[in-house]
Amino acid sequence: MATPVNKTAHSFDKTRLETLLNRRFFYAPAFEIYGGVAGLYDYGPPGSSLQSNIIAEWRKHFIVEEGMLELDTTVMTPAPVFETSGHVARFADWMVKDLKTGEVLRADHLVKNVLEARLAGDKEARGLAAQPQKEDDKKKKRKDKSKPTAVQLPDEVVAEYENILAQLDNFSGPELGELCTKHKITNPDTDNEVSEPQQFNLMFASSIGPTGQHPGFLRPETAQGHFLNFSRLLDFNNGRVPFASAQIGRSFRNEISPRAGLLRVREFTMAEIEHYVDPADKNHERFAEVRNVVLDLLDRHTQAAGSTRVRPLSVGEAVDQGIIANETLGYFLARIYLFLVKIGINPRRLRFRQHMGNEMAHYATDCWDAEIENSTGWTECVGCADRAAYDLTVHSNKTGHPLVVRQALKEPVVTEKETAEFNKKVLGRTFGKDAGTIQTIVNDMDEAALLRLKGELAQGTATITSSDGREFTLAPDLLTIERKTFKQSIREFTPNVIEPSFGLGRILYTLLEHSFWSREEDVERGVLSLPAVVAPTKVLIVPLSAKEEFNPLIREVSSKLRQAGVFSRVDDSNTSIGRRYARNDELGTPYGLTIDFASIQNRTVTLRERDTTGQLIGSIEEVIATVTELVDGSIDWAEACRRLPAYDGTQAV
Amino acid sequence: MATPVNKTAHSFDKTRLETLLNRRFFYAPAFEIYGGVAGLYDYGPPGSSLQSNIIAEWRKHFIVEEGMLELDTTVMTPAPVFETSGHVARFADWMVKDLKTGEVLRADHLVKNVLEARLAGDKEARGLAAQPQKEDDKKKKRKDKSKPTAVQLPDEVVAEYENILAQLDNFSGPELGELCTKHKITNPDTDNEVSEPQQFNLMFASSIGPTGQHPGFLRPETAQGHFLNFSRLLDFNNGRVPFASAQIGRSFRNEISPRAGLLRVREFTMAEIEHYVDPADKNHERFAEVRNVVLDLLDRHTQAAGSTRVRPLSVGEAVDQGIIANETLGYFLARIYLFLVKIGINPRRLRFRQHMGNEMAHYATDCWDAEIENSTGWTECVGCADRAAYDLTVHSNKTGHPLVVRQALKEPVVTEKETAEFNKKVLGRTFGKDAGTIQTIVNDMDEAALLRLKGELAQGTATITSSDGREFTLAPDLLTIERKTFKQSIREFTPNVIEPSFGLGRILYTLLEHSFWSREEDVERGVLSLPAVVAPTKVLIVPLSAKEEFNPLIREVSSKLRQAGVFSRVDDSNTSIGRRYARNDELGTPYGLTIDFASIQNRTVTLRERDTTGQLIGSIEEVIATVTELVDGSIDWAEACRRLPAYDGTQAV
Repeated sequence: MATPVNKTAHSFDKTRLETLLNRRFFYAPAFEIYGGVAGLYDYGPPGSSLQSNIIAEWRKHFIVEEGMLELDTTVMTPAPVFETSGHVARFADWMVKDLKTGEVLRADHLVKNVLEARLAGDKEARGLAAQPQKEDDKKKKRKDKSKPTAVQLPDEVVAEYENILAQLDNFSGPELGELCTKHKITNPDTDNEVSEPQQFNLMFASSIGPTGQHPGFLRPETAQGHFLNFSRLLDFNNGRVPFASAQIGRSFRNEISPRAGLLRVREFTMAEIEHYVDPADKNHERFAEVRNVVLDLLDRHTQAAGSTRVRPLSVGEAVDQGIIANETLGYFLARIYLFLVKIGINPRRLRFRQHMGNEMAHYATDCWDAEIENSTGWTECVGCADRAAYDLTVHSNKTGHPLVVRQALKEPVVTEKETAEFNKKVLGRTFGKDAGTIQTIVNDMDEAALLRLKGELAQGTATITSSDGREFTLAPDLLTIERKTFKQSIREFTPNVIEPSFGLGRILYTLLEHSFWSREEDVERGVLSLPAVVAPTKVLIVPLSAKEEFNPLIREVSSKLRQAGVFSRVDDSNTSIGRRYARNDELGTPYGLTIDFASIQNRTVTLRERDTTGQLIGSIEEVIATVTELVDGSIDWAEACRRLPAYDGTQAV
Repeated sequence: MATPVNKTAHSFDKTRLETLLNRRFFYAPAFEIYGGVAGLYDYGPPGSSLQSNIIAEWRKHFIVEEGMLELDTTVMTPAPVFETSGHVARFADWMVKDLKTGEVLRADHLVKNVLEARLAGDKEARGLAAQPQKEDDKKKKRKDKSKPTAVQLPDEVVAEYENILAQLDNFSGPELGELCTKHKITNPDTDNEVSEPQQFNLMFASSIGPTGQHPGFLRPETAQGHFLNFSRLLDFNNGRVPFASAQIGRSFRNEISPRAGLLRVREFTMAEIEHYVDPADKNHERFAEVRNVVLDLLDRHTQAAGSTRVRPLSVGEAVDQGIIANETLGYFLARIYLFLVKIGINPRRLRFRQHMGNEMAHYATDCWDAEIENSTGWTECVGCADRAAYDLTVHSNKTGHPLVVRQALKEPVVTEKETAEFNKKVLGRTFGKDAGTIQTIVNDMDEAALLRLKGELAQGTATITSSDGREFTLAPDLLTIERKTFKQSIREFTPNVIEPSFGLGRILYTLLEHSFWSREEDVERGVLSLPAVVAPTKVLIVPLSAKEEFNPLIREVSSKLRQAGVFSRVDDSNTSIGRRYARNDELGTPYGLTIDFASIQNRTVTLRERDTTGQLIGSIEEVIATVTELVDGSIDWAEACRRLPAYDGTQAV
């Protein structure tokens, strides 16, 4: 137990991790026995538990802590909603087709993969390809045409490729097409040329009801369900802003050619917050609590300059310097950081990247992504967008249902302005059916135009012109223009929306990568060092054997742990204790309780910690009390070692 | 506080409940500002919390208590899966069209509504329509043509209608069409005739991927996701049965014309258990624990006899008498009962009804529904089906992937049988390309046929016939038939599946009906008596006013409750304490803590109970300790009244 744990004795081995996750059924391709479908995955028992523990912690960290209003809205959505929100027209990716095979590829991914492969080939040719490769990898490489053999590129081409890659997300579809032509980018699997990029809408379409008259889409985000209920939510919050709604639920995106495991899927669980705030005041009441949290920031100017170097900065400074636009956005970035670190994400592999202009979703005015580094590079796991008043405004305009906040002003605002009043009788008699047109022209005039008209009428007649070019001459008996006083005691505004949006599958997968290592003495013995707060099972109960005499104690310990709110499982399978512990190291189970003959005689059990494999011994009551505190985080393993004697393998015999 | 609560002073008023649920945003029609879509509802904050509390309790009662394996599988499903499962061909309802307007109606609902209305009209004509109607109802009635004015029917017609209604679920589509013709059933809204019933598949269709080549469906149940992962689950369970998988998730059914609020929707959350059991042993290890639970049973024989009279019977007796087919089915029916009662369903309005032959889903061999009575009648809320080996067998046959359990036999089974062995050289030389046909014919022979053939060959040649009628004459040098011994040490079988399947929205809605009442002194003061375990908010903190001096105490009490795991909300809105409590009675909040000036001076707070409106007083610490025990169910209000003095309205001033 005194031996310090060396988690980096072996370098990260993705194949080993994937084998483990598959064998222990964290997740697996859905419909596998039917050959599977790209981008659809099922979570097995440990994956489901890990996911629901992450969700439970998310609920506590965000919803409960901040009194957010939780929602559960439908996935199936009638088409008019997404026509208004802009998703039907613009929620699309650019795809290209292989001109001979018809295979469909995502245009930006194609450019990225081919240029990265050429840069790797260049490095190899320059003798810079450092990592030795295993036989396996080499075999794969020969088949994979996206990795050409070592070819050195001119220095200026290398610079150009690096510049393209640094701002890849900023290119439009036609620009991606030009890049393919200019740099002779072909389908790496076939070497065939590809078509011009075309847009492909990412929403799954369906039809509601038996007559086929109501087209619908599966939501690609939960957000619209929040916005459409805004009036009810505001009412529930007694008419006050700021407040937030939150929703955890399934969303769907018909990705063009998903290939990256849980990182790019067609069906996924999201957790989204919509925080409604007065556009004139985006300060946050609790900003002081997070002011000193330091984040690695990558702003849009740095990226536009072709660099990806992050800058560590406290949230307070970033807001003060205008790098993060306002306190509310800064507050949520810090809270996102704290959440991710709490569930086990390595803070040194977490950065916040600002979107560039063309990259931004059609509804956003500013956006920062929490990106987590993993074996495929940096992956967007949480988006934090300022959607401004976009959504509430478009839905309100479309439906005529006002989605606004009405605030009583402490001091009524008094304004004066020129106001026209018509003598409708005379107007109608003089102009007949053009009377309405004339009223519209005058009512649409600004202060200056009204004053001019007033002046002209004071001196006789005035001529006005309609939008279709017709002229009307007005006499003073038709209308009077006077300065009037208006008192406004209510302020009405459309709130702005700050949206932190979490992709739970991506977080779950990167967390598994960050948690995985192998024991120094044996690379085959993989461990998932998941924090207890999210670990699928907290305690494994391991009887020495499946003999019936252990059953009463197993039942007692299980039931006491359940009462203490600690989720445990029993493993009485017919294999050695060491093998059972190794299996549970792979499942990320942080603690183990061994029940043996000494337990029956002396009521002692041993307590094992996953990462150190250290073992302590104590009475059933002492050990359950200790493990309960370990699991809820009120003590750590060092403290447990001070409380209970180490088990040297002899006491229990 | 001494006054007993009279919850039935006012009869149940559905309109009042619906108004409350809408105003307090338990749920609302989805896309309401777009005019809504039938059968789609959004849950607001109290509805979402109520739902997630029901789910949490379900997880504890079933998954944790029984160590079930939780899954989270995808909604989007490729078409071949549902072709194999039979859903593409058979998961359909019968619909009819109004021959003039084209309106689409569900055939069985049409028959039910029209016949029930005629029976009601008959009762009225016979002077038996007991309940006086309010003006409102009468107005509605005049518009609603499904309720004809009082017309007396002949006694034999009444008997016929009642008989039809008692077994309505048992009719096929053509039979429903015959009923419409025979009884002159027309669309009650228009009096127009309706078409012959046609099948309408209830699955929502979509297409996976950019090329449109992969048709898919949204799952109508979560079950297939369990079955397709059976091998992985069995492996995770170390190869042993019985065990169960469980999943909570969204499913979709494109209902023909949903009209009944949350009771019939197009998108809903289900909780499903698939319990895998040895078909040769459907006993249950824990059956003794539920043997004495008494259920109101309505078996299929009673229904076939035209009656709906339930029979209260203990689960043990019902299994002993063969009414419930086996212990495992009985065990789950009892566990379902215990769960429903625990979350607040009235046990006197809960019955278990067995499906009749034609009513059963295509995959089921036996099925019992937990039906809960509500204002629309008896509603299926939980189905408990014995799906036998249906699903595992069809998927296994289709994919060639064995979905079976392999059990090592303690004693190998030794069998002897006649076995044919061919001399392939001679066979090929004699019969050429027919050699294979001949082998197939012989290998397909049963023991008796082989013995006959053996006898014939012993005496010379024998003639055999192929399925297409060709004759072959065999000589003894072609094959030998001998008695051989076989030893089998592994037993292989397809497990049977018992499936308890919960519709959470239906349970949630009927629970709201069962919980609703109005105070005797004022019918306008509605209360939802939800048990604390599922109540959206457990404790409301009510400061006397929004004055800042109360803030430190509010923060202290909130934070102490959060630490104790009790979910609370603060209501500091600018309205009287009584009004705030009335609002929270409508939200089902069981307890309230009032913070007033005495709290600041003496650190006392009052504790209010929702149903009795009784109030106690104590120190902050005492009250928090008491309310924590009340919420977790370890004490009741009577015990709290023994611990803390009643508040008479003066102590705190």
